[in-house]
Amino acid sequence: MSTDYSNGDCESVHQPLLHSGRSRINSTSQVAIVGANVCPIESLDYEIIENEFFKQDWRSRRKIQILQYVSMKWVLCLLIGAIVGVVGFFHNLAVETLAGIKFVITSDLMLQRRFLLAFVVFCSSNLVLTLFSTIFTAFIAPAAAGSGIPEVKAYLNGVDAPGVFTLRTLIVKVIGSITAVSSSLLVGKAGPMVHIGACVGSLLGQGGSKQYGLTCKWLHFFKNDRDRRDLITCGAAAGMAAAFRAPVGGVLFAFEEMASWWRSALLWRTFFTTAVVAIVLRSLIDFCLSGKCGPFGKGGLIMFDVNPTSIDYHLSNVLPAMIIGVVGGILGSLYNALLTKVLRVYSMIHEKCIQYKILLACVISIITSCFIFGLPWLASCRPCPVDAAEECPTIGRSGNYKKFQCPPGHYNDLASLFFNTCGDAIKNLFSTNTDEEFAYSSMFTFFISCFFLSIFSYGIVAPAGLFVPNIVIGASYGRVVGMMVGKYFTLDHGLYAVLGAASFLGGSMRMTVSLCVILLELTNNLSLLPLVMVSLLMSKMIADAFNPNIYDIIMKAKGFPYLKNHVEPYMRQLTVGDVVTGPLHVFNGIEKVRNIVFILRTSSHNGFPVVDEPPYSEAPVLYGIILRDHLLTLLKKKDFLSAPMAIGDDAFKRFSADEFAKKGSGNSDKIEDLLFTEEELDMFIDLHPFSNASPYTVLETMSLGKALTIFRNVGLRHLLVIPRVFNGFPVVGILTRHDFMPEHILGLHPSLERSRWRGLRIKLPFRSLVACK
Amino acid sequence: MSTDYSNGDCESVHQPLLHSGRSRINSTSQVAIVGANVCPIESLDYEIIENEFFKQDWRSRRKIQILQYVSMKWVLCLLIGAIVGVVGFFHNLAVETLAGIKFVITSDLMLQRRFLLAFVVFCSSNLVLTLFSTIFTAFIAPAAAGSGIPEVKAYLNGVDAPGVFTLRTLIVKVIGSITAVSSSLLVGKAGPMVHIGACVGSLLGQGGSKQYGLTCKWLHFFKNDRDRRDLITCGAAAGMAAAFRAPVGGVLFAFEEMASWWRSALLWRTFFTTAVVAIVLRSLIDFCLSGKCGPFGKGGLIMFDVNPTSIDYHLSNVLPAMIIGVVGGILGSLYNALLTKVLRVYSMIHEKCIQYKILLACVISIITSCFIFGLPWLASCRPCPVDAAEECPTIGRSGNYKKFQCPPGHYNDLASLFFNTCGDAIKNLFSTNTDEEFAYSSMFTFFISCFFLSIFSYGIVAPAGLFVPNIVIGASYGRVVGMMVGKYFTLDHGLYAVLGAASFLGGSMRMTVSLCVILLELTNNLSLLPLVMVSLLMSKMIADAFNPNIYDIIMKAKGFPYLKNHVEPYMRQLTVGDVVTGPLHVFNGIEKVRNIVFILRTSSHNGFPVVDEPPYSEAPVLYGIILRDHLLTLLKKKDFLSAPMAIGDDAFKRFSADEFAKKGSGNSDKIEDLLFTEEELDMFIDLHPFSNASPYTVLETMSLGKALTIFRNVGLRHLLVIPRVFNGFPVVGILTRHDFMPEHILGLHPSLERSRWRGLRIKLPFRSLVACK
Repeated sequence: MSTDYSNGDCESVHQPLLHSGRSRINSTSQVAIVGANVCPIESLDYEIIENEFFKQDWRSRRKIQILQYVSMKWVLCLLIGAIVGVVGFFHNLAVETLAGIKFVITSDLMLQRRFLLAFVVFCSSNLVLTLFSTIFTAFIAPAAAGSGIPEVKAYLNGVDAPGVFTLRTLIVKVIGSITAVSSSLLVGKAGPMVHIGACVGSLLGQGGSKQYGLTCKWLHFFKNDRDRRDLITCGAAAGMAAAFRAPVGGVLFAFEEMASWWRSALLWRTFFTTAVVAIVLRSLIDFCLSGKCGPFGKGGLIMFDVNPTSIDYHLSNVLPAMIIGVVGGILGSLYNALLTKVLRVYSMIHEKCIQYKILLACVISIITSCFIFGLPWLASCRPCPVDAAEECPTIGRSGNYKKFQCPPGHYNDLASLFFNTCGDAIKNLFSTNTDEEFAYSSMFTFFISCFFLSIFSYGIVAPAGLFVPNIVIGASYGRVVGMMVGKYFTLDHGLYAVLGAASFLGGSMRMTVSLCVILLELTNNLSLLPLVMVSLLMSKMIADAFNPNIYDIIMKAKGFPYLKNHVEPYMRQLTVGDVVTGPLHVFNGIEKVRNIVFILRTSSHNGFPVVDEPPYSEAPVLYGIILRDHLLTLLKKKDFLSAPMAIGDDAFKRFSADEFAKKGSGNSDKIEDLLFTEEELDMFIDLHPFSNASPYTVLETMSLGKALTIFRNVGLRHLLVIPRVFNGFPVVGILTRHDFMPEHILGLHPSLERSRWRGLRIKLPFRSLVACK
Repeated sequence: MSTDYSNGDCESVHQPLLHSGRSRINSTSQVAIVGANVCPIESLDYEIIENEFFKQDWRSRRKIQILQYVSMKWVLCLLIGAIVGVVGFFHNLAVETLAGIKFVITSDLMLQRRFLLAFVVFCSSNLVLTLFSTIFTAFIAPAAAGSGIPEVKAYLNGVDAPGVFTLRTLIVKVIGSITAVSSSLLVGKAGPMVHIGACVGSLLGQGGSKQYGLTCKWLHFFKNDRDRRDLITCGAAAGMAAAFRAPVGGVLFAFEEMASWWRSALLWRTFFTTAVVAIVLRSLIDFCLSGKCGPFGKGGLIMFDVNPTSIDYHLSNVLPAMIIGVVGGILGSLYNALLTKVLRVYSMIHEKCIQYKILLACVISIITSCFIFGLPWLASCRPCPVDAAEECPTIGRSGNYKKFQCPPGHYNDLASLFFNTCGDAIKNLFSTNTDEEFAYSSMFTFFISCFFLSIFSYGIVAPAGLFVPNIVIGASYGRVVGMMVGKYFTLDHGLYAVLGAASFLGGSMRMTVSLCVILLELTNNLSLLPLVMVSLLMSKMIADAFNPNIYDIIMKAKGFPYLKNHVEPYMRQLTVGDVVTGPLHVFNGIEKVRNIVFILRTSSHNGFPVVDEPPYSEAPVLYGIILRDHLLTLLKKKDFLSAPMAIGDDAFKRFSADEFAKKGSGNSDKIEDLLFTEEELDMFIDLHPFSNASPYTVLETMSLGKALTIFRNVGLRHLLVIPRVFNGFPVVGILTRHDFMPEHILGLHPSLERSRWRGLRIKLPFRSLVACK
């Protein structure tokens, strides 16, 4: 079966590496760690299953139904936008209120100079909030832990890890994120908001949660993976838009970072969704500005107005932007590397038992409280500047100049950063005309502590984002750089902080356009654009040389079989035939129930080729492919044929399209639950109307790289491999996502591991992560 | 060959519609109108041709060469950005200077009350500029006429119309656009700038222009369609960024409107390119601000600062934004419809002879001059406002209050709009706190005249964009709406103008995110965002019901076989076998020179399947596909084999990869130029090392919709169709771009035209456009 003309080839890599290995089994890990659970992974069917049944359903739809479908799409986007906007607003309000009360009580005690009591109150309130968040997450929905962005990204790539988009996860994520953020842990809310948005999209698309009886029958059009994917993309965009009040940034984030497939119609719909978010937020803020939302509820979401008048930068200022970019790239990749190590240690702790998880969170919370309360004592009090634009020191509200333990007329610069919510700290760092406000030592202490606190806080079992901590870290080292080189350039130190935030985010998350737009929308200042671009590009370029972006690392650590767009060089040297594994289970066009039940019970495959064999055709002919789900539906209905004959049009009378709709996650049928009598087992099913008669196929001599291109670009779950020379059987095997995983390919062909066809990336010891799973 | 089980189907559409039509020829038009020439169209090879030769070339590349390739990519992006930035800046400077001199001379004459002379000077200078632009374009590079965006968009879709990206076109486009814009014609510069950017990208990628001896040998890595496509995408983004000083908008424009294929790496590179543009522009403007660029050269590109303090909008203001959106959608689609009609008339005039083209341009120029000079006389003089923020009337420079014929202390509001460059007119319309400046009648006159002037100006044979005229039209009717409904809402009239511009652009061009970002970057005001989004979405939604976007209409009129991403419903009812046409020319793995020459001479196909037949294999086996270009290279070299035997490794010694590199456009070899002796004709060529051994294939029973999905998503030129049942020959036919054109499919199956599977769009009489071609 090998190519006749490859014999003269000089490179051994090109020799067929696998001659008769079809009976080997693909043993690439097919489970993932979601939250703290290990759960089986399913791929998603993003392909349109074009069987007779689907076509008939399509034909029977009237124009009014098609219009209904199209308009429902828009209504769902509207709903997603509105719900996510409201959730985002209340999330912010709740955090402001909880954290506000905590800081006011503590500050009052400190004004009375009862410092120890203040510490006890501060520390214990933080501990209680953390405990609440952790226990809630660990016991009710472990899938809600962490940022959620890796899970959503994997889903949009076609990896379905159960429990990620349930109503339960949604509720835990909202409440857990509010308490975690208000507990002064260095965790963000952007990641959880993205996950919340995706959950809302998914739940709306499947018509609510079946488990809690909240379902709508009229949403059955959306019961397929394609439409659900679109809704989840819209939800993710809405989440990001709500977190930072950045509607365009949200769309770009969904496009650049989250989505694996994109179509122009989707751009338009995500855009609509985030526009709704923006309008909902704007009107709720308008409502709150009149003081109806409690003492702390100004309702303003994070929005750091960088004073536009102070920016008069010239070409020479590109240099400090580049310096910050280089530093940001190095620090960002270092951050990724350290975070990976810490997550590995944490996951070992988490595996032990649930008490350990909670204990770990408590320890982190206490350490954080000690840092926040203790470190400002090391900073010396600074006299208030004479020409300060605002009250100094600020007492009883957020502001640039925190009094802390200082005498009147003085402020503690480190407390202004530490003893605050993250949002206020960022506001202080970004503020302009405050070049003299912070001491060198304070900035440095703040930067170092945030860097490590953030690394140690992310992995605890609570909803925790990385975006806001990264901005804090980046802004603080940006200011440090500004203090060091500032005198040679004309930039304000607040702008250095913005550039620092951009470069650190770029170094850790590796987004470009979306990050740029999000930062511009955050700071409401477009004239920063060219400098932000320079910093971002430098840092991404530097960091890419060291390791992948943080979400990819986390996805790999969690075991998601994420399908990259990039074709590794060694894939061009292999053919499809070299990696396809067996055993291959094939059904006849008209198949005995007994065979179907047997194969479903003994294999875990999700798609089976349907082949017409003699006597039903002259020679074995590939008819199509049938999905496990659809077979289960057929078996469940028990509407079998007593003799092997074509069912024809009867199929459309006996079955309805609804029965073949994709079940909500976790609700799919199982073959073990179905029981059959001997009589039933001897009957037949005509699989033709239910088989996808247009499966994508590749010849076995196709190069693996090209097969990956089609698999990824078209968004497939199964790719049939057909023989080059017809030798009796029309199909050789099925390629699935796992067959393209580097671990699988390198496992089959260990010689490639050492060959020079591996990538060019400078390797740090990350690959061991996969092995340890 | 038809499916056994489809007989029971009730719809005739599903019956195989074509049983033995493989010998029919695809007669879909394969020529396009570019400029005024009719020229043959070629498809581009965006697929990686994975033949033995390519693989060997890849293997022989050392790490240093790969690094060189990667770094060259970035260097080229840097160069594109720098060149386009400089061109954009000088374009702007030249227009400002030319138009400035013209207006100052005319105004001076008017101050002396020599009105007739002023008109003669104004009109004749416009005429001379128009004539220069037209003659230059018509005689030297007709492909430079028009906007250029449709040509670039078609190229990025895989359609290569010759002459679009030559050095000659570039030069004509730059000079022609400068003169056309300064001649007071209502044409824009954004479209030409995008084309200029794309030309720069293409020329750099192919290492300069061969025709003029400007080539670099070390750019041979980029001599393929894939890399050239990436560079052209970067160039288009840079062009848009330079036209509006909108770097993020440029990237999004390239992504949303121009590109048909996108990968994440490209996002990063376009972003880098536009960052370079932004920095180059910024530094050149800095240089000019010190007055070194002549009396008119402030160097400021269009940048309409909308005063942020005046925006305090509430939820209630969403209503006027929606009204403006609806009106914009209707006007935009009407604009598209009228423009189409006018273009059709023009193209008939243009076909006659070159004098007619020039005459037409002269007529348009004179009419425009008359409108601009004549209409302000109808407006009554208005007294200067007492509290005007700037000098009133403004004399000798641009400003809100033009004196024109008015007595001192008065201004002519219509002249403030008309008697100005487009940029200044937009600035006036967008300016805030000027609610009382314009009279109802003046605004209405201005709107109507611009609407029609723009429609009649676009089609002349000169570089002419649509973006800026659309902004002018949109802004003027936005102000009209503002005047009508303004008293019920709290928005400033300047903001109505911005919303009007957004909605009209949305209605005509149908972009969403990119337009939104471009407008924000133009007005430098982020707080407008939610309202702009609402207007855009409304107008796009309304307009989409009537006709496609203007660029798609122009592409269709020009005859580009643009491959849409959208699968028409009837495509799901057809199989690949129903549309594939013949005759199919196949080569043996080792083929006689005579056969190759004969087939190349008698057919115009660009790809040929290579089949190994007995005695070289047991049964006919598909080996791969070979391109016409590569066959021509092999023939040209005349390194034939005297006997039919495998060439093996010898191939890599006899040929070098450079020889198979894609030639620059217009430089490809022709079979007619090659002559062979009888002896040579009887020799052989081993095609194996040069054939793409991994061609993409589909089964003939695959639904056409799915075949289109793979064709479009993977970016193919040829898609091989293989038989479902092996009946002696391993390949049935080849699908190309033209086989997916609705005209071709509907031509083969006229019954579909009337079936209900056509789209749902409300049909206006545009379809006739295709027929008239």
